[in-house]
Amino acid sequence: MSLPAAPGLTGPLVTPERLGEFFAPRSIAVVGASDTSGWARFVAASAAATGFRGPLIPVHPAHRTVFGRPAIPSLRDLDEPVDLAFIMAPADAVESVLDDAGAAGVRGAIVLASGYREAGDDGRLREERLAARAAEHGIVLLGPNCLGFVNAHARAAPFALTVPQPLIAGPVGIALQSGALASVVLAFARSRAIGVSTLATMGNEAMIGTIDMIEYLVRDERTRAICLFLEQISHPARFALSAEEASSAGKPIVALKVGSSPAGQRAALAHTGSVAGDDAVVDAAFRQLNVIRVASIEELLSTAALLGCNRWPRGRRMGVLTASGGACDIVADRASAQGIEIPAFAPRTEAEIATHMPPFAAVRNPLDVTGYFLANQRTSALTVIDRALDAAVADPGLDFVLFAGMTLPDTRPRDETLAALIDERIAWLGERIATAPIPVIPLAMTCVDVTPYARDLLGKRGLHLLGGIELGITALGHALRWLEARAAGGEGRPAVVSANGRPGGPAGWPAGPWSETAARALLARHGVPVVPAELADCADAAVRAARRLGLPVALKICSAQITHKSDIGGVLLGLATDAQVRDGFERVRAVGQAVPGARIDGVLVTPMRTDGVELLAGARLDPAFGPVLVVGLGGVWVELLNDTSLRLLPADAGQVRRMLGELRGAPLLTGTRDTRPADLGALADVISKLGAAAISLGGALRALEVNPLWVHGDQIEALDVLVITGHEGETRTERTR
Amino acid sequence: MSLPAAPGLTGPLVTPERLGEFFAPRSIAVVGASDTSGWARFVAASAAATGFRGPLIPVHPAHRTVFGRPAIPSLRDLDEPVDLAFIMAPADAVESVLDDAGAAGVRGAIVLASGYREAGDDGRLREERLAARAAEHGIVLLGPNCLGFVNAHARAAPFALTVPQPLIAGPVGIALQSGALASVVLAFARSRAIGVSTLATMGNEAMIGTIDMIEYLVRDERTRAICLFLEQISHPARFALSAEEASSAGKPIVALKVGSSPAGQRAALAHTGSVAGDDAVVDAAFRQLNVIRVASIEELLSTAALLGCNRWPRGRRMGVLTASGGACDIVADRASAQGIEIPAFAPRTEAEIATHMPPFAAVRNPLDVTGYFLANQRTSALTVIDRALDAAVADPGLDFVLFAGMTLPDTRPRDETLAALIDERIAWLGERIATAPIPVIPLAMTCVDVTPYARDLLGKRGLHLLGGIELGITALGHALRWLEARAAGGEGRPAVVSANGRPGGPAGWPAGPWSETAARALLARHGVPVVPAELADCADAAVRAARRLGLPVALKICSAQITHKSDIGGVLLGLATDAQVRDGFERVRAVGQAVPGARIDGVLVTPMRTDGVELLAGARLDPAFGPVLVVGLGGVWVELLNDTSLRLLPADAGQVRRMLGELRGAPLLTGTRDTRPADLGALADVISKLGAAAISLGGALRALEVNPLWVHGDQIEALDVLVITGHEGETRTERTR
Repeated sequence: MSLPAAPGLTGPLVTPERLGEFFAPRSIAVVGASDTSGWARFVAASAAATGFRGPLIPVHPAHRTVFGRPAIPSLRDLDEPVDLAFIMAPADAVESVLDDAGAAGVRGAIVLASGYREAGDDGRLREERLAARAAEHGIVLLGPNCLGFVNAHARAAPFALTVPQPLIAGPVGIALQSGALASVVLAFARSRAIGVSTLATMGNEAMIGTIDMIEYLVRDERTRAICLFLEQISHPARFALSAEEASSAGKPIVALKVGSSPAGQRAALAHTGSVAGDDAVVDAAFRQLNVIRVASIEELLSTAALLGCNRWPRGRRMGVLTASGGACDIVADRASAQGIEIPAFAPRTEAEIATHMPPFAAVRNPLDVTGYFLANQRTSALTVIDRALDAAVADPGLDFVLFAGMTLPDTRPRDETLAALIDERIAWLGERIATAPIPVIPLAMTCVDVTPYARDLLGKRGLHLLGGIELGITALGHALRWLEARAAGGEGRPAVVSANGRPGGPAGWPAGPWSETAARALLARHGVPVVPAELADCADAAVRAARRLGLPVALKICSAQITHKSDIGGVLLGLATDAQVRDGFERVRAVGQAVPGARIDGVLVTPMRTDGVELLAGARLDPAFGPVLVVGLGGVWVELLNDTSLRLLPADAGQVRRMLGELRGAPLLTGTRDTRPADLGALADVISKLGAAAISLGGALRALEVNPLWVHGDQIEALDVLVITGHEGETRTERTR
Repeated sequence: MSLPAAPGLTGPLVTPERLGEFFAPRSIAVVGASDTSGWARFVAASAAATGFRGPLIPVHPAHRTVFGRPAIPSLRDLDEPVDLAFIMAPADAVESVLDDAGAAGVRGAIVLASGYREAGDDGRLREERLAARAAEHGIVLLGPNCLGFVNAHARAAPFALTVPQPLIAGPVGIALQSGALASVVLAFARSRAIGVSTLATMGNEAMIGTIDMIEYLVRDERTRAICLFLEQISHPARFALSAEEASSAGKPIVALKVGSSPAGQRAALAHTGSVAGDDAVVDAAFRQLNVIRVASIEELLSTAALLGCNRWPRGRRMGVLTASGGACDIVADRASAQGIEIPAFAPRTEAEIATHMPPFAAVRNPLDVTGYFLANQRTSALTVIDRALDAAVADPGLDFVLFAGMTLPDTRPRDETLAALIDERIAWLGERIATAPIPVIPLAMTCVDVTPYARDLLGKRGLHLLGGIELGITALGHALRWLEARAAGGEGRPAVVSANGRPGGPAGWPAGPWSETAARALLARHGVPVVPAELADCADAAVRAARRLGLPVALKICSAQITHKSDIGGVLLGLATDAQVRDGFERVRAVGQAVPGARIDGVLVTPMRTDGVELLAGARLDPAFGPVLVVGLGGVWVELLNDTSLRLLPADAGQVRRMLGELRGAPLLTGTRDTRPADLGALADVISKLGAAAISLGGALRALEVNPLWVHGDQIEALDVLVITGHEGETRTERTR
């Protein structure tokens, strides 16, 4: 499958094929390298740390040798082109270095310098020039303002930070929108012996973007799971496509997306803005795209390692084997919090395990094999817990086994007999786990470094140890949800409509709130049933309308300039007689006329609706992901509980139906004694049409909100409608990092 | 302050003074030691690992030497008494070993054997005999079924597991109700360089209990924070006292209490049972006692180390110093989740920091000093982040500084100049942090092992590194809540009324649900206003009652045998005419008469109450903590949202007022447009009296529930009352571990 290229001038250059070449350079030039440059020393050390086998050529106009290697004055002095130039020159000099690189036939470049987009408008122009210049020369460029990358399989690390040693080559690919975090990520990966394929620091993404990196990692055979540190998602539509591709390829994306601390309220006139804040939209979008969202670096890598290093469970029924009753209790608590089941062992499993256990010990799931086996000197390779594993993997009632029995001494025992027994045991475990009918997930009891002894011993047998009960079970919860969503096929990829990328809706929308009549008309045009209403311009007309519509009625001042109608007394409910309507009309009009600058369209007369359930249904334009639909029960359910469900638009009736099911208050729609159960199919259809109405406003959508949307059995009506539009481009400016 | 001794025969022996002696033995005998005993080898290795300086004497009837030391046949053969005997003999032989120990003047013993309480009734008797025998001989006993202890300061480790090396002596005291977890706990402590004072595995607690251990650690000068792993709390009243003592002494208790996975429903007839399950009560009790509850081993130790190793912040305003923009974002997100503020720096702080920063960098809180300082070779000891620290600690708007700038190389650099610069820097940091006006919390970026190099370098300067952003900020959240609760003085220690320890209420309570009239009378006697009601035995009487009480009325079948009245049609609401009342009476009575075995007291006539807010207020007897009060809003708030607040009883009106404030639905009591604001003072008073009514039932209380408790302004009435009592001793049997 081929994907649309990145937008802009430089798009066609960056393809997964070119990136495959870019991330596996056979020769590297370090431009601006000097003995006193900290950066250059890092790059030289990284090359050594990863065992880089190609030439690493210092380029500096003023030095003959740099870190003991002969230097050349310019890239133009290369005898033959290098695959990659790591450019450490100051921002002012980078473009001319690119010219040199182009002339020398260099095909890839990393730019370290800052002073680009993150430095304001001048910097932005400089960044555009940089990308254009690289494209002119056919050079693929990472950065600027980045620290390079590490490719453990290709043993290439043009990387201006320390590479913690040893770097283990493995299945986890990593893209980071923060360069300095790379050393933290690699430090944790090293400590837990998590193997890395390619890690890249993305910098300003002038040419190679995070999404390009995802597409490269999806195609990279060595990568089986993808970790992202995200500060922003620039092209949500492409992000959605690449996430879908990753899921199809069976490569989970695990993302640490920052920005969950509450930012400013947007579109504060509507509830929709406060309950569908940017971060809630990210949550919803990631769920729709089956991207695993995590809260910490440790969770990021542990989850990716779990999915990248182990066979995948088919279900939630977990066997647990430990040598500690306390650990069983902690595992049970954590598993319960993640909805992971710990069913009883089958009788046959229990009987088989019992033959290996001390007589006083209870045989049950979770299993504590007790410390009994420690009482005597060790004479055989396998211990009780290994026998228990052998039995448990054959249990037909289990989907996988969590095996907390891989504890090893800190170092290889000096007693060779013992050391040999351990070697034999781990070999047996590696083989048993590889051939077991169900996956076995080895778990360390706590999150401490895997010792070099354990790393070598386990690594040789393809065994990976999850880092502790807490991180391990959290990762398992993520993994199981990801697998389930993948198996269910999801709701179909959302057709992300970007706020930025969109050509814009019909011109001429007003900037600000609409009058209610206009808003009602918009909804009606899209097939959303709206409560009958008549606009009255005098008390007599109001009375006539009330009689036609049926008493009692509600009166509402109608003016685009008045949004908080109830707060100023612009809404009256339950007027049951002509006199009340007449009197009410005058009061409501007076209230409206007292608002400075308000143009009064009239007073809207609508019949009262009682019983039934009131919902909130709305949409707003997210600056990254485009239009977003919000559904919730009305009143306290939104105000106090924030009990809402979000989806990227468009959302069909089936998706809306699932949204309704996700509400904590869902039983109120179906289950109470007092009200008729809502026709959920009809309701979902109406809300889906409301979504279409919102989409029709294009990039001008600020908020479209029905509150309440009244539901009584199969009667559904929008009782109050608010539409706010704004000028295109009124979205946030991009963040710098 | 002196505390009541543990109940039972053996109480007076176990005092903090005796435990001080017990946990610092100068000589140890290992009874049952042989060269092939795994346990004995562990004890010998542990002694070596901790640098035990006293004699370690093997005792075995059949061996002359054990692990290279001369053995004696029996404790009676000791030349002079040892302080402690570690008894590894099988359970059958332990009592006679105790006789030997007594004869030899040994004052302390650890019993490893299992086969006691955890093995059923015979074992329980054996355990009682064991404790009695030890007491007879004046021997303080830890276990049975335990693995001993480690005292890092006293360099004593009669401990039958591996002690991870090096064991660092420090401020964290630990009591574990699971022996095998000790090695996990010590492994994590070692990895994070967390110093331990005394760690004890509690075993069956035949004599020394977890609470004794808390009291010992409170008095132990070396201990500044206390970690507990709890499977059960046997004496909640004493636990409460010791927790209060710990808090007064400024020693936080951090507890990993297992059992949060949902267990069986109790008292399922009442809502109170399902919303106040055992684990919810533990949560409530710990909050009242200011015991920090954590979910993992890592959180347990990190939180204790934070509070034990650092000065305590006075507030929530945090300065953040890092060398990574990504880390700033993660810290901000995590801090926001914990309610920790990151205010702007004062202008003076900002200006001072700016003088050290590269020109392009933004100076703000959280601060990213950028990697700029890496660009050049290091020539001075202090880096930008150290200068920033120097400025930030003087910022009047901050309560503490989170300092993520202590990154060190894996090992001491071979370049002596560089190594000396680092030494100088860490010395400066140690000094600066010790003398800073506000606390500085050093933070590692991720949870990996502290290297030996860093451990020595930082340890020498009294610096402790919190283990990663995620664990660190979680621990900070715990610490700040603990400090705030301590400063607020709490709600006063709850007078815990244990289910077990209590002499029992007035005899003669029925076993099962009460009739509503009896239940109403109980509440009325305690001053709880109950909706007026008359019990009618015929339709005419019902009509007369309805006229007296005022129409419309509700009718309710009244029978102790019928509890789910509404479900079978035994409740009719809103009967507005004589005819409706007459007809309703017959229907309700017929429904009641159709219930097999139900003795019908009559039909209860009560006036309808509309408007207002409905609450749930109830109490149940927790098997560990005694009577517990539950308060919540009624209906969906309990059914769908489980929005309740819990307190151990008794609870005065002030406490109940705070409970009301904790409800998510609290604004419904005070803030909606439609209803009169509730008189919270009066409401709290009523609920407090309801609590007193529950206490009056003593150990017979199963459930006492008012649902709904109707509140309309200052009108408060119990509309429906359910009381269930049971025979004493109907509490769960103790768990074995």
